[in-house]
Amino acid sequence: MNNTNNSKLKIIPLGGLHEVGKNMTVFEYENDMFVLDCGLAFPEDDMLGIDLVIPDITYLRKNADKIRGIVITHGHEDHIGALPYVLKELNIPIYATKLTLGLIETKLEEHGLLKSTKMFCVKQGQRVKLGCFDVEFIRTNHSIPDSVALAINTPVGMIVHTGDFKVDYTPIDGGTIDLAKLGILGKRGVLALMADSTNAERPGFTMSESTIGEVFDELFDTDQRIMVATFASNIHRIQQVINSAVKTKRKVAVCGRSMLNVITVAHKLGYMKIPSGTLIEVDDIGRYSPHQICILTTGSQGEPMAALSRIANSEHKKIEIYPGDRVIISASPIPGNEKYVSKLVDDLFKQGADVIYHSIAETHVSGHACQEELKLIQALVRPKYFIPVHGEYKHLRQHAKLAEKMGMDVNNIFILSNGKVLELDKNSAKVAGIVPSGRVMVDGLGVGDVGSVVLRDRQHLSQDGLIVVVLTLDHETGTVVAGPDIISRGFIYMKESETFIEEIKVILRKQLLEYEQNGVKDWNTIKTGIKEALKDFLFEKTKRKPMILPIVMEI
Amino acid sequence: MNNTNNSKLKIIPLGGLHEVGKNMTVFEYENDMFVLDCGLAFPEDDMLGIDLVIPDITYLRKNADKIRGIVITHGHEDHIGALPYVLKELNIPIYATKLTLGLIETKLEEHGLLKSTKMFCVKQGQRVKLGCFDVEFIRTNHSIPDSVALAINTPVGMIVHTGDFKVDYTPIDGGTIDLAKLGILGKRGVLALMADSTNAERPGFTMSESTIGEVFDELFDTDQRIMVATFASNIHRIQQVINSAVKTKRKVAVCGRSMLNVITVAHKLGYMKIPSGTLIEVDDIGRYSPHQICILTTGSQGEPMAALSRIANSEHKKIEIYPGDRVIISASPIPGNEKYVSKLVDDLFKQGADVIYHSIAETHVSGHACQEELKLIQALVRPKYFIPVHGEYKHLRQHAKLAEKMGMDVNNIFILSNGKVLELDKNSAKVAGIVPSGRVMVDGLGVGDVGSVVLRDRQHLSQDGLIVVVLTLDHETGTVVAGPDIISRGFIYMKESETFIEEIKVILRKQLLEYEQNGVKDWNTIKTGIKEALKDFLFEKTKRKPMILPIVMEI
Repeated sequence: MNNTNNSKLKIIPLGGLHEVGKNMTVFEYENDMFVLDCGLAFPEDDMLGIDLVIPDITYLRKNADKIRGIVITHGHEDHIGALPYVLKELNIPIYATKLTLGLIETKLEEHGLLKSTKMFCVKQGQRVKLGCFDVEFIRTNHSIPDSVALAINTPVGMIVHTGDFKVDYTPIDGGTIDLAKLGILGKRGVLALMADSTNAERPGFTMSESTIGEVFDELFDTDQRIMVATFASNIHRIQQVINSAVKTKRKVAVCGRSMLNVITVAHKLGYMKIPSGTLIEVDDIGRYSPHQICILTTGSQGEPMAALSRIANSEHKKIEIYPGDRVIISASPIPGNEKYVSKLVDDLFKQGADVIYHSIAETHVSGHACQEELKLIQALVRPKYFIPVHGEYKHLRQHAKLAEKMGMDVNNIFILSNGKVLELDKNSAKVAGIVPSGRVMVDGLGVGDVGSVVLRDRQHLSQDGLIVVVLTLDHETGTVVAGPDIISRGFIYMKESETFIEEIKVILRKQLLEYEQNGVKDWNTIKTGIKEALKDFLFEKTKRKPMILPIVMEI
Repeated sequence: MNNTNNSKLKIIPLGGLHEVGKNMTVFEYENDMFVLDCGLAFPEDDMLGIDLVIPDITYLRKNADKIRGIVITHGHEDHIGALPYVLKELNIPIYATKLTLGLIETKLEEHGLLKSTKMFCVKQGQRVKLGCFDVEFIRTNHSIPDSVALAINTPVGMIVHTGDFKVDYTPIDGGTIDLAKLGILGKRGVLALMADSTNAERPGFTMSESTIGEVFDELFDTDQRIMVATFASNIHRIQQVINSAVKTKRKVAVCGRSMLNVITVAHKLGYMKIPSGTLIEVDDIGRYSPHQICILTTGSQGEPMAALSRIANSEHKKIEIYPGDRVIISASPIPGNEKYVSKLVDDLFKQGADVIYHSIAETHVSGHACQEELKLIQALVRPKYFIPVHGEYKHLRQHAKLAEKMGMDVNNIFILSNGKVLELDKNSAKVAGIVPSGRVMVDGLGVGDVGSVVLRDRQHLSQDGLIVVVLTLDHETGTVVAGPDIISRGFIYMKESETFIEEIKVILRKQLLEYEQNGVKDWNTIKTGIKEALKDFLFEKTKRKPMILPIVMEI
């Protein structure tokens, strides 16, 4: 970051580009900076044992004194999930809408950060001052209430960031995305638009959330017991489940801690309408007939430990499937979860449930804008520069193409990647430099301590297990005084492989005798020799390549 | 299998039900038996390190003298892949169509089984005698040529098995599925129908293979270099690539060993028409302009080691992406591969390719029948009993529902599972007994030696790695004469954890001193003590649960 030109605005994505998740963007102008969103990502398949992934915040650490705040667009994990980790290092005030703050509070409380963190509640339509930045919160639609887009007034011009959004003309509550406001901003002149690319591959228009209520009404009109699984944070969906339950005179029992948490927060803050007497405890389900019951549960992605999977596997303490139960999976599989969901549906069917799921009914709508909505935003905002955000490279690419088709100069479209610094002034924009960025893996209490070496070892161990060779040498003579012993895990089934293990020992003894006769006492030579001798033998015998761990002790 | 009633036909699925893959069904009547298909399945996510899965053939072993043959419906891996493993144990003659046999031959040659195996080529429309069974091969459409359904004439009546199929009125060659034949069988009376359920969830009709040729024609009409990835065995798809290449005066270079093998076999046997001079070596690509080139490649599923993934990652020896290359992925992601394909598309875009894939264009059609086709077969065959086959439970369920909707008595529909014995005579059918069935895992040269213990260890190691504690005791005194030493892999990064390892050693030394003072010399007590002491400490410090391997040596 040499040659910094202080009269330029810098937009620096630290996460969320070329990936789904860990959204975080820095806005910087001279001595002021603020952070937009602070999310986590779920680990990729090759990140074995990793719990979650957060952005590398080296750049924030270096500029801690400049940061005026963190602005959060909505309460999903990929926008708030990294907050505890960032706030443990940097005490920065948070700006968000009421529900978003409510969800953040629960999270910070768990991490013991609630007292030390300043939080400011901002309403849709209100503005906050962050150093030289003036940020207005604009109402949007998304799969969680109280989501906002941002109009960021900077010294070089207006930046509009959509956050995650869709256009819903018949939302459950809160009103339609403030399209007029976006139009007004467009008329006044917008320097750059940053817009959600998640569904940029999909033609058409995302269906309204309220279409799901109509489907629920039909599906609930039955004598069967109803069970609905959806995302814990999808408050509008949960509201619609409750609405349909009330219409069909059902009590609602909620199963799954995360969903209970969200409902508690949302209800307390006025984001849900639940007629009194509607909610019952899971323990009381048995006191009602099937047609009087609706069970709301987590686990719509088939996550093996979530409530619905445990129910489907008869491993849940309190709830089991009765033949004839109508189970509605009100979600689509998130990419990567397809097989989990498929197994869940299969398990439910096997228990005799009447399963209604994405492949056979319209039980879910996306929370993200499709192509026609994205074009609508472009048409309203009419930015000078366009930066597609939130998504894999292919999504950003498709989004850029849409803008191009609408007549935008291709040189004014910037597909950035994490860490790239986009410098803008009133008349120009260019990528100028790069700052540290990347994936910090969280594994248990360790933040960033698991790196490529540890992951490579986990990968190796997961494929072919390991074989430990241990022996004790006499320091003076180089004679083997104990061992070689063999311990193996994940390679072969030890109990049924005695002959094979004996063969291995024969090879080892031969090798060790040679070393003794030649006076070789050097540990490394012996270890390397053991590894080499075993590697070829094991592969020839099994076509497997276990990790070989030779341990030489000395007395 | 006591109380066998020898006047009944037994249908015994040994694979392919409640799963996708490893299709195998036994037909048995008195002293005669034949096996229908002999496929493999790919390992599930939790089968770490496993190469492939085959059916448990205990039942075949027990009845080896009764087996009159293996009939194969088509040449896909999930129908032929287990042949080498079965034939190593049981020498059974194989009956299949010409192309299917050609593909089997390649496979058997690799396993050194070609000479010992009897193979009989059967044409579509021909019949073979297998003991008391008379089996007619019926032409079908599928994503590989020479696929057949079977009309199995048994002493108790006619059984129709569709194999994998779709209905294609405009196939690339070989003609439409022999619907008239199925109708004639139906008129004469069919005791039971067994039909492919893969697409039973999908409404409508699967599009014809030839629609893809039209898409190719349009996509090839460009100055760009063309690269097409598809399944190695999809000969009709490959033929259409060649057709479009010839029309646009392009040379075709084939990349990927499996595809080269299939093209060689198919061409030799007359299943492909390739104008001479069309195929060129990959090495010669550079001698032509981009618009004169079409590269055909494997890797449409984003498999990390396949040609296209290596090309997309600049790891391929001979081919690289040039900006502007048009890359067509002519396949849909198989469930479980979605993230691989997504990454592949992203990598190709990043290299500057113009990627055409399933989300944005009709570059693929399925090889399996959708609901309207399934109904058509029901309407023609009009069986007394119906057994949906090939698919997860949910697919079988949906398929059963279709039959029910068409008026079939629900008591005449049998959703079986692997190992279940369905006994039929002219007037009745019932599940009567069960035979051994299951999944045999192949890992390298090991067939069935990796079981739940080894897999559980691999799972454990993959999540949190391991820590080995090793020490040498004086046999007489119980004194520690060497160690304790700590070796860890996949748990923490050893090089940066010296303090932590020292802390672990302190705990261990304390524990060992206690044992020494109390005269404890028993290995197991010491090992268990070490494990217990470490487990809690490690979890408290890291919230991880590595495998702990204590090794005590004695001198």
